[in-house]
Amino acid sequence: MDAAPPNPGLVFEMLQAHQRTAALKAAIDLDVFRAVGEGPGDVTSIARHCAASERGIRILCDFLTINGLLVKSAGRYRLSPTAALFLDPRSPASLASVAQFLANPAMQEPYEHLAEIVRNGRTVLPGDGSVEPENPIWVQFAQTMAPMMAPVAGPLAAIVLEGRTTPMRVLDIAAGHGLFGIEIAKQNPQARVTGLDWAPVLRVALDNASRAGVDARYDMLPGSAFEVDFGGPYDAVLLTNFLHHFDRTTCVGLLKKVHAAVRPVGAPPRSSSCPTKIVSRRLCPRLSPWSCWRPPRRAMPIR
Amino acid sequence: MDAAPPNPGLVFEMLQAHQRTAALKAAIDLDVFRAVGEGPGDVTSIARHCAASERGIRILCDFLTINGLLVKSAGRYRLSPTAALFLDPRSPASLASVAQFLANPAMQEPYEHLAEIVRNGRTVLPGDGSVEPENPIWVQFAQTMAPMMAPVAGPLAAIVLEGRTTPMRVLDIAAGHGLFGIEIAKQNPQARVTGLDWAPVLRVALDNASRAGVDARYDMLPGSAFEVDFGGPYDAVLLTNFLHHFDRTTCVGLLKKVHAAVRPVGAPPRSSSCPTKIVSRRLCPRLSPWSCWRPPRRAMPIR
Repeated sequence: MDAAPPNPGLVFEMLQAHQRTAALKAAIDLDVFRAVGEGPGDVTSIARHCAASERGIRILCDFLTINGLLVKSAGRYRLSPTAALFLDPRSPASLASVAQFLANPAMQEPYEHLAEIVRNGRTVLPGDGSVEPENPIWVQFAQTMAPMMAPVAGPLAAIVLEGRTTPMRVLDIAAGHGLFGIEIAKQNPQARVTGLDWAPVLRVALDNASRAGVDARYDMLPGSAFEVDFGGPYDAVLLTNFLHHFDRTTCVGLLKKVHAAVRPVGAPPRSSSCPTKIVSRRLCPRLSPWSCWRPPRRAMPIR
Repeated sequence: MDAAPPNPGLVFEMLQAHQRTAALKAAIDLDVFRAVGEGPGDVTSIARHCAASERGIRILCDFLTINGLLVKSAGRYRLSPTAALFLDPRSPASLASVAQFLANPAMQEPYEHLAEIVRNGRTVLPGDGSVEPENPIWVQFAQTMAPMMAPVAGPLAAIVLEGRTTPMRVLDIAAGHGLFGIEIAKQNPQARVTGLDWAPVLRVALDNASRAGVDARYDMLPGSAFEVDFGGPYDAVLLTNFLHHFDRTTCVGLLKKVHAAVRPVGAPPRSSSCPTKIVSRRLCPRLSPWSCWRPPRRAMPIR
């Protein structure tokens, strides 16, 4: 990898990068993007909508302009295309709720102790931190992060199904909002999905399944992925955004347990090309919502 | 200003930008840049030097590599040119102490309440916040921020002096580390400098003046810029990195007080072109240490 010439700007930018997170979070909390989106975009109107000081709004909006979320001309602000699509609460693609999770104090606070975390090689949070049993942050995750995953849930389901419309059983481990399994149930009316997660999290998934009209084919398996009996056999197991929480030994153990729960190759019913798939985002970087979605050329069967 | 096409990456990048500040701060605290600079750069050696876990060091160093501060090849890390010059404590241009100020909890904590700050248009800190009389953060500022200002102190003094070597008196308001006034005293052996700041801060400036060998011509005027009698008259008044803390009315009042303290035009002694100057970084964007320094074409006299 080539290195750029020395630039102190990089050091200052990183030391102050936390201000950018705070500014976006504050703007979302104050409803700035709705205020600017509705217009007319002068400081006085925005401040009135947000019940905030004009001085504070002016400084915040100037900072958001520098950062590409607003556009300023002749003293008025308007939304940049990014903010109009992803931050105006009136947009169907709004990601504003994601900030409630990614920028919440519980998620940010551990970073104040990062040196200690690196020293010890483990979390400073009580117990096992975010993967402590029944940690309530996963309820908030399920409630807020769906807009981030919605754009990839459909394509992921298509990868898993490859057009299959015959009866099948799918296990969705650490289902969270449940969108990935729900999309499979939507695309294959013969699919039955089992969501596995902590019980309060599964209630969020079931709500989403109801809204999608597939709750009659959505079963709940509450508990720890490492402890509950998966049942099965399943035709597909979804293991999304999960393995990165654990060390290699733990992941290998879990993958063996997953493997034992999938229908053996050759056993009916099977699809034409690949009876059993384990799809992980780790294995499919093209599913990253950070890049523009392009249809994958082929699925990635395991075994 | 033109707006880029919609890009959710900008939203996610901003929501997680605080992680970049935390990573750089942790790396400085753990002495990672010295460890990598001394080599050989494998995870085991770095972890041993930093008394940290190999797992934590590997993850942190990979993150620093993505951010352009380290370069990784064949499993070994080395410093990028930016880190070698500005973050290795062995470099004379090291900016590592700056992180102690910019990324310290007292400076970062208010950002957790940014929505409230914007709502009220003022600090959430007790009293007047950072400009509360005798706030001890300015001692830390004076102790740690000198490396950031050192590269511009010499050029700024040259702007003020324009080659003048005759006797003169200079007032340095909110002197902090004192570097700007000290550079004037270094470049003009007939200049006498008065530093104005809180008393504990001036002790840091006087230490720096001693190290520069100009303490015999460095006077201390402890107190508030808004309350103490400036004395004078002065041939030049430095008002650096100060006005941005205050509102317009306060700034106008202070500038009138400054104006009254400078030697009237025409009164002896005078230099050939401009007897009195007030130099502020706000007036001289070319002094920003964020951009490469180029010698200014002309000074900016006031009046």
